[in-house]
Amino acid sequence: MISQFYKDMTGKESVIRKFFDYSRARAAELGPDSVFNFSIGNPSVPCPEDFNEELIKLVQEREPVALHGYSPTLGQNSTKQAIADSLNRRFGMNYEAKHVFPTSGAAGALAHAIRCVASEGETIITFAPYFPEYIPYVTGAGAKLEVVPADTTAFQIDFEKFEAMMNPSVAAVLINTPNNPSGIVYTTETITRLAEIMSKKQKEYGHEIFLITDEPYRELVFAGADAPFVSKFYDNSICCYSFSKSISLPGERIGYAAVNPAAKDADYLVPMMGQVSRFTGHNCPTALMQFAVEKCLDETSDLSIYERNANLLYDALTKIGYKCIKPMGTFYMFPESPCEDANEFCWKAAKELGLIIVPGDSFDCPGHFRISYCVPTELVEKAIPLFEKAYHFYK
Amino acid sequence: MISQFYKDMTGKESVIRKFFDYSRARAAELGPDSVFNFSIGNPSVPCPEDFNEELIKLVQEREPVALHGYSPTLGQNSTKQAIADSLNRRFGMNYEAKHVFPTSGAAGALAHAIRCVASEGETIITFAPYFPEYIPYVTGAGAKLEVVPADTTAFQIDFEKFEAMMNPSVAAVLINTPNNPSGIVYTTETITRLAEIMSKKQKEYGHEIFLITDEPYRELVFAGADAPFVSKFYDNSICCYSFSKSISLPGERIGYAAVNPAAKDADYLVPMMGQVSRFTGHNCPTALMQFAVEKCLDETSDLSIYERNANLLYDALTKIGYKCIKPMGTFYMFPESPCEDANEFCWKAAKELGLIIVPGDSFDCPGHFRISYCVPTELVEKAIPLFEKAYHFYK
Repeated sequence: MISQFYKDMTGKESVIRKFFDYSRARAAELGPDSVFNFSIGNPSVPCPEDFNEELIKLVQEREPVALHGYSPTLGQNSTKQAIADSLNRRFGMNYEAKHVFPTSGAAGALAHAIRCVASEGETIITFAPYFPEYIPYVTGAGAKLEVVPADTTAFQIDFEKFEAMMNPSVAAVLINTPNNPSGIVYTTETITRLAEIMSKKQKEYGHEIFLITDEPYRELVFAGADAPFVSKFYDNSICCYSFSKSISLPGERIGYAAVNPAAKDADYLVPMMGQVSRFTGHNCPTALMQFAVEKCLDETSDLSIYERNANLLYDALTKIGYKCIKPMGTFYMFPESPCEDANEFCWKAAKELGLIIVPGDSFDCPGHFRISYCVPTELVEKAIPLFEKAYHFYK
Repeated sequence: MISQFYKDMTGKESVIRKFFDYSRARAAELGPDSVFNFSIGNPSVPCPEDFNEELIKLVQEREPVALHGYSPTLGQNSTKQAIADSLNRRFGMNYEAKHVFPTSGAAGALAHAIRCVASEGETIITFAPYFPEYIPYVTGAGAKLEVVPADTTAFQIDFEKFEAMMNPSVAAVLINTPNNPSGIVYTTETITRLAEIMSKKQKEYGHEIFLITDEPYRELVFAGADAPFVSKFYDNSICCYSFSKSISLPGERIGYAAVNPAAKDADYLVPMMGQVSRFTGHNCPTALMQFAVEKCLDETSDLSIYERNANLLYDALTKIGYKCIKPMGTFYMFPESPCEDANEFCWKAAKELGLIIVPGDSFDCPGHFRISYCVPTELVEKAIPLFEKAYHFYK
């Protein structure tokens, strides 16, 4: 019969979506200049020209039956090898092609990795603030997501609370660095301590605990950031990556999961991901995109605008009086709301000023709001007086 | 902990795969001329030139941030509308854009459709011979696949057995026409009778029973075939389509599910599919492929070679003495094995003659073997004497 579970879900719109829809309705009613939309994390800079040139070259030069033909179940070998080589070169790792599983973006990578290392009734721990889509990825695998409350002093990790929440049902820990929505990057110190605690708990519980790292913002780090390659610090790790943000291809659904060669069952995990795909009807990502990203593995879009916007906005907001942890990457920042109820604050800013920002409640971190500044710098400049007005609603 | 379920599965290679691997190993050892590979259903003709031209045009002319940006959750509206228009024009239906959900091929369409209309503990009925990947699609949704034994007289439907197997736990019936592996097409008479029985059972059980139609071979029909558009005959239907075979794009993972506008909850089903995607980490198919197929909806590759090969091979095999239902579409045929154990027959043909065909056991239809004749006609001609030798192993 028609699934009541999925039917009920269609009625539950995400809060981010509601703000986005409000901004569209307002723009339609009052004109586009009445809206300052900082709600959506969609890259605003084009992909590298090399990428589009490679797409055209592939279509013009490769034999079409081979180009558009089925990928091997575990991905195009040339793509897997090129990704392994790039990671090894850049981060001193020793991945082989067999450790890399091309996926439909980081979402696909996470959904596959989670199903491989966590089963029915087991627990995955993550840290607030976190991307709310982790909930369906984890519950879709039959596991349960438990959330360590935010360290609001620095958006690193509250290790005391983390250790208190660890228990033998924990199959994996899921982190996102650089972080959506806080914009911070986990430091070498944070990753080192996380790895130490996890290693200790693995021994104590007598089973592996996987570290799943959600890294779509890996290349979006700002000057001075201490942004270590997480998998270097912990053997039982799976790196989940997407080309969505680094080369501005969110609609092309291309990324990968890279299994640490030192992980338990490292040689099984990619073939297991191939099996997971059979149950979700996912199969490989598009062949053309697998081939095309091979040529851009060490490139990024021109990401400088994100850092410029971050600095401009951070300086202005803190001058106004907002409290904010300085972002070190991504295209987000996550200030404290001047009103305790961030939801109220964001709706007031939207309705009175056309300033569209989203409350931290969606990321399990109330009292804060997220600004997505992947927008033209001019829009940031125009919005600063509005952020000032919004602050003075309350202070 | 590492999933024992998926780990155990990695050891279980499909029989088709084993034959394919054998053919590769043999070619490596004895040279490519020693192998006559009829095991794999991979299109052998190129995509229409229009398709590649459209890819290049999109990349050259569209603004890259928009071209490669996120699809709306339920797919590109222009693509959905174009697919609806094409189906309406060709089959006299009345789909709207909201009834169409772009997917990663027919696999994605089936996995989404099944999760929407069948829940934990419910049953989906299909008919032998059938594509073995239906098992993970159905069990992945928590449902159970039950198989009506083959009508080996015509590979239509054994309605007596079908009716006997119907029961109130049946949430959906899943058919594949034109059929892999038999090459037959369900006739208007078959579809009419199927719809009548299902309608009767819906009333009797007091709940809807969905008809899910797996139609990747829809355009691959031969002269004289009676190949009705299934959804015209039954309201509670979801058509699952892929561009893999019709325009030779199996690696590009692009297809759709089209919900019959007359179905129960027709307006909910596509939004529900969007919710399913969140749990599987699938999201939309590649934006570029969605845009590009818009221009080729009423086109196919030059599929004439498949019909030419079918006729050549059917005439030759039946002359030799093989019993075979004449294929009316696809690029498969499914003769009776001259030895009762088709598995034994296929291995003997592979090892003694380099003739690679696969046993019907994989499709829940023992005593038959599948020939995939999506190969150059020259290869078919060369293989005919080998089919003759293989027949005379036993007769």
